[in-house]
Amino acid sequence: MSDTVARITIADIARRAGVSTGAVSYALNNRPGVSRETRERILAVASELGWQPSSAARSLSGAKTETVGLVLARDPSTLGVESFYMQFIAGIESELEKRSYGLLLQVVPTLEVELATYRTWRAARRVDGVVCVDPRVDDPRVALLAEPDALPVVVVGDPTLANGLMNVWTDDAAAIRQSVRYLHAVGHRRIARVAGVEGFGHTLIRDGAFRDETERLGVEGVVVRTDYTPDQGAAATRSLLTAGADRPTAFIYDNDVMALAGLGVASELGVRVPDDLSIIAWDDSPLCEATYPRLSALSHDVTRYGAHVARRLFDVIDGQPKASFLDSTPVLRPRGTTAPVPAK
Amino acid sequence: MSDTVARITIADIARRAGVSTGAVSYALNNRPGVSRETRERILAVASELGWQPSSAARSLSGAKTETVGLVLARDPSTLGVESFYMQFIAGIESELEKRSYGLLLQVVPTLEVELATYRTWRAARRVDGVVCVDPRVDDPRVALLAEPDALPVVVVGDPTLANGLMNVWTDDAAAIRQSVRYLHAVGHRRIARVAGVEGFGHTLIRDGAFRDETERLGVEGVVVRTDYTPDQGAAATRSLLTAGADRPTAFIYDNDVMALAGLGVASELGVRVPDDLSIIAWDDSPLCEATYPRLSALSHDVTRYGAHVARRLFDVIDGQPKASFLDSTPVLRPRGTTAPVPAK
Repeated sequence: MSDTVARITIADIARRAGVSTGAVSYALNNRPGVSRETRERILAVASELGWQPSSAARSLSGAKTETVGLVLARDPSTLGVESFYMQFIAGIESELEKRSYGLLLQVVPTLEVELATYRTWRAARRVDGVVCVDPRVDDPRVALLAEPDALPVVVVGDPTLANGLMNVWTDDAAAIRQSVRYLHAVGHRRIARVAGVEGFGHTLIRDGAFRDETERLGVEGVVVRTDYTPDQGAAATRSLLTAGADRPTAFIYDNDVMALAGLGVASELGVRVPDDLSIIAWDDSPLCEATYPRLSALSHDVTRYGAHVARRLFDVIDGQPKASFLDSTPVLRPRGTTAPVPAK
Repeated sequence: MSDTVARITIADIARRAGVSTGAVSYALNNRPGVSRETRERILAVASELGWQPSSAARSLSGAKTETVGLVLARDPSTLGVESFYMQFIAGIESELEKRSYGLLLQVVPTLEVELATYRTWRAARRVDGVVCVDPRVDDPRVALLAEPDALPVVVVGDPTLANGLMNVWTDDAAAIRQSVRYLHAVGHRRIARVAGVEGFGHTLIRDGAFRDETERLGVEGVVVRTDYTPDQGAAATRSLLTAGADRPTAFIYDNDVMALAGLGVASELGVRVPDDLSIIAWDDSPLCEATYPRLSALSHDVTRYGAHVARRLFDVIDGQPKASFLDSTPVLRPRGTTAPVPAK
C-alpha cells in the first residue's frame, strides 16, 4: 500500500472517541457491550471521520458487495477489435447503474485461471454474482458454478450448455438456417462458413445448423475455422477464393471484423461484391453500415442482450427460480453485399 | 444475499477444527495466542475448506485489493457506440492481466455520483487506485483525488488539468493545428470543427488550438458543439451544409462516429466527398477504414494509451514520484475524404 494512502480504521475512531477498539467494533456492528451514550458518541466520531464499513465487513454481516463480475478468458488485445463486448458491457452497465452496482472485469489467459478467479471471488466475497460467457460443451466453469454453494450466475448461451443454471440465449441455429435458405433462394449452391473458435458451444451449434441446412437443401457447405481475428478472416477468405473454379459463391462470417477483412481481400483479388461473391456478417454493428457496399448482416440488439442478462442475474441474486430465457433470434438484414448468383 | 450462497467463515473453520473462533482468528492472522500445533491444524482445516481472506481483511492487514477502478460519468448506451473506450479498456486490461488485477468499472449518471463513488471506494477499500478520465477545468474530482489521503490516481488528460497528480496525455492541440495547416495548404479557407462536450478540458484545448491556428492562417473557423453522438454529428453537418454558398469546405469531427454520420448526410444532400467537402475524423478506428471513401483521420494507438495509463497507475500505487507523461501526438492520416478545394 502506498504510504500516501491512509484509511479510517477502527483504531482511529477508538483514539478519537477515547474508547477501546472493541467498544468501537460493538458499536459499529450494533451489538450489545457498550452503553447507549458510548455507542452514539462512537457513531458520531465514525461519521465525522468519514468511516464506512469495508467490503468484507459488510459481507460478514450479510450485506452485498454491489459488484457483479465478468471474466473474459481471451487475449486483451482482441477486446478492442470487435464491438460485441463493448455493446454487451454497455447493456449490463445500463442495468447496474440503476442499482449503483459496479462491474468487476477480469481478463485472464486461460479457462483454468477463470475457474480460480471464481473460487477467489466466492471465498473473498468480491462479487454478488457473475456473468459466464462463451460456454463450451461439458464446460468446467458451468460445473463449478452449478455447485450448491457457488456464486449466483447467468450463463450467456444455449440452454443445452447451461446445466440447469439461469441462462439467456440467442437462437443462433435458426439464424444460420435463415441465412443458408436466403442464399439458396437466390441461387447459391456453394456456401462457405468462416467460423469462430471451435471450443465454444455456440460455434458447434452454428456448425450443426449450417451442416443440416446445407444438406437438406443439397447445397455444398464448407467450414473454415478461425480465432475471430481480422487476420484469420482475411486468410480464410484468400484461401477459399483462390481454390479454383468451384470456389464458394457466398461466405457467412462469424463476426463483423472478419467480414470486413474478407471484403478487403475480395477487392484486392478483383472479386466483385456482390456480383461475384455474396457476404453475410454476424453481429451487425455500425461498422457493417460503414462499408462500401454496406454489409448484409445477422442483426440483434447486443446492448439489450447485455441488459437482459444483468436483469436475470439480479433475479438469481434475489433468489428467483432458475430458467432459460430466449433473448432473440438474430435477423438477416440484406444490404449491399448479397445478390443472386449471375446466370452462367 | 441469496440463500443459495454460503461462504467459508471463521466459525466454520472453528467448528471443524474444534477450537474457538478467536483461536482461528489468531492462527489465520499469524498472531501469538495459539500453540504451534493448533495453528497448524487450523491452517490445514482452513485450506481443506477452501478458506481465503476476504477483501477487507486483507486490506486491514495492508494487503492489496488487486483491483483498480474506472468510473465513467456518462449514459451507458453511448459506451457501445464509440470504439475509444473499449480499446482504452483493452489496453488497461493488458497490463492488469500481468498482475492478475481486475478492473472495477462503474457507470454513473453525474460527476457528483462519481465523487461519491471515489469516497466509498476509498473508505471501503474497494480498489488500490483509480483512472480518472475526461478531466475538466477546475475539476472537483481532481481536487478530491489530490487530497493527501486520497486513492492513488492517474489523470488521463493534459498536465494543465491534473493539479500535480500523475497524468498521461496526448497532445491534442498539436493534432488540431496539424489538421488546420494541412487543410489550409490544399486550399481550404472555411473550416468547421464539429466539437465534443464543452465541459471537457480536452475540448477546450482543441477549441483554443483551432481558434489560434485558423486566426494565424487567416482561415474562417466555425465551431459547432455536440455530445459526440452520431445524431448530433449528423445534425451539425446538415446545418453547416445547408448554410448557403459560403458554407465550410472542410469539417474536422471530434470522433469517428460523428464523421461517419457526416459522410452519410453529405451523400444524402448530394455533396460529393472529397470533391466538394473534405472530412477529418478524430480517433482513427477500424470504422474509419471501412467507409467509402475511407475516412482521413487523426490517429493514435488507443490500446497502447490505456496500457501506458495502467503502468503509471501501478507506479503511483508503488509509491513512485508523480510526473506528466506525454503518450503521443495524434498523427493525421489522409485517406479518401480529404482533397484540395477545386479551382472556381
